[in-house]
Amino acid sequence: MTSNPRGKFITFEGGEGVGKSTNIHWCSDWLTAQNIDVIVTREPGGTPIAELIRNKLLKAHHAEPMVPMAELLLMFAARAQHLEAVILPALSQGTWVLCDRFTDSTIAYQGFGRGLDLSSIETLKTLVQGTLEPDCTLLLDAPIEVGMARAHGRSVATGEATDRFEIEQLAFFERVRDGFQTLAATHSRFVTLDATQTLDDIQAELAIRLNLLRAP
Amino acid sequence: MTSNPRGKFITFEGGEGVGKSTNIHWCSDWLTAQNIDVIVTREPGGTPIAELIRNKLLKAHHAEPMVPMAELLLMFAARAQHLEAVILPALSQGTWVLCDRFTDSTIAYQGFGRGLDLSSIETLKTLVQGTLEPDCTLLLDAPIEVGMARAHGRSVATGEATDRFEIEQLAFFERVRDGFQTLAATHSRFVTLDATQTLDDIQAELAIRLNLLRAP
Ligand SMILES: Nc1ncnc2c1ncn2[C@@H]1O[C@H](COP(=O)(O)OP(=O)(O)OP(=O)(O)O)[C@@H](O)[C@H]1O
Ligand SMILES: Nc1ncnc2c1ncn2[C@@H]1O[C@H](COP(=O)(O)OP(=O)(O)OP(=O)(O)O)[C@@H](O)[C@H]1O
Ligand SMILES: [Mg+2]
Ligand SMILES: [Mg+2]
Repeated sequence: MTSNPRGKFITFEGGEGVGKSTNIHWCSDWLTAQNIDVIVTREPGGTPIAELIRNKLLKAHHAEPMVPMAELLLMFAARAQHLEAVILPALSQGTWVLCDRFTDSTIAYQGFGRGLDLSSIETLKTLVQGTLEPDCTLLLDAPIEVGMARAHGRSVATGEATDRFEIEQLAFFERVRDGFQTLAATHSRFVTLDATQTLDDIQAELAIRLNLLRAP
Repeated sequence: MTSNPRGKFITFEGGEGVGKSTNIHWCSDWLTAQNIDVIVTREPGGTPIAELIRNKLLKAHHAEPMVPMAELLLMFAARAQHLEAVILPALSQGTWVLCDRFTDSTIAYQGFGRGLDLSSIETLKTLVQGTLEPDCTLLLDAPIEVGMARAHGRSVATGEATDRFEIEQLAFFERVRDGFQTLAATHSRFVTLDATQTLDDIQAELAIRLNLLRAP
């Protein structure tokens, strides 16, 4: 009996509306057409317990404000469950795992966006993942306005924010984008795709990347 | 205006049924009679979000087994919220905080009892507490059978476990007790009380300890 080679772990990252969900499903279909076993999952979530953490704690309204460290620990609790119950078992069976957001989103949103101590996030990452990293992280990168307009089904905004809340929101998303770009510049597992391209062009690049990952 | 001196942080530890709840309330009454502001709280729990983590996640039945690392992160998420939302604000107002179980219980139960990596627990403790430690930890120590009998309102069992489950349970609680004793032997903040004594005798000792903590 020959044992399956380990599956590939591919994460999809980027801001809101850049096309993560659209392209993760395209990749899943492409891999399936090549007879490769694949699952699509997402963070935070991906198992009953992790979805409970997402829905009852992270996305719920509470009678008190949640402290940032509690939020961070909840995210990594969901991730620990997701990793051990879903991702690692699939990979070791030879199934490829496509994950819509992963630890890089925590670094970009909580770290770069909200100013949480990056070294605390690193500590938790090491505790939960050990040395495990995605085989490839596909970063869909686009100016904030492009993703926002797509997410809201609007045409591209002028980029001139008006009220203070909008200006703060834009500044936040700029920091998040900068976080992703910084991660991409410092980790060789990242592939940055220009998400302002047509889906056809993006998917032509994705096919090339997936083919490279298939090679032994 | 003179600012209040910082309140004292006292934790109550020990196995099941050793008298933590009984004595924490006695201490609260004693301090109140001395005109000292005091709150009684407990872990895991102590705030709406922490109680939600306790009830919906740690104590709930799930469709999948919870992985140990997820459980540990959830406990520390509840603790982070409890510390920052309840314990630290009270202490800085000069209120004494009496807490029924704290991090030492995580070390004794999850670490010594269930075999979780002690260094992971230490890492999380440092992340959440920094250098904060209780001013005093009161360990109520008694043979397992004494606490179990009290918790179940039975007379002290013979100590001769019969079925395998009961033997495993006893071995687990012995490891937990050993964990608490090891912590007490290595941390000067611990005071070990013989919980087989009468409540009157225990409380005479408690009054001495509380008086020492009051001294400037
Ligand atoms: N390259 C593209 N060109 C044009 N439209 C696109 C492109 N990529 C995605 N879209 C469209 O933009 C919208 C948002 O895409 P999608 O839901 O895949 O983004 P997402 O990154 O998953 O967003 P979210 O962060 O909200 O989950 C969809 O209507 C999708 O069809
Ligand atoms: N020293 C003692 N002598 C006799 N009875 C005691 C003593 N201490 C506690 N008890 C009784 O034992 C029972 C358990 O006590 P208590 O609930 O305070 O323990 P606990 O440590 O809080 O237990 P749990 O771990 O279940 O929360 C109560 O009925 C209490 O009155
Ligand atoms: Mg999406
Ligand atoms: Mg009790």
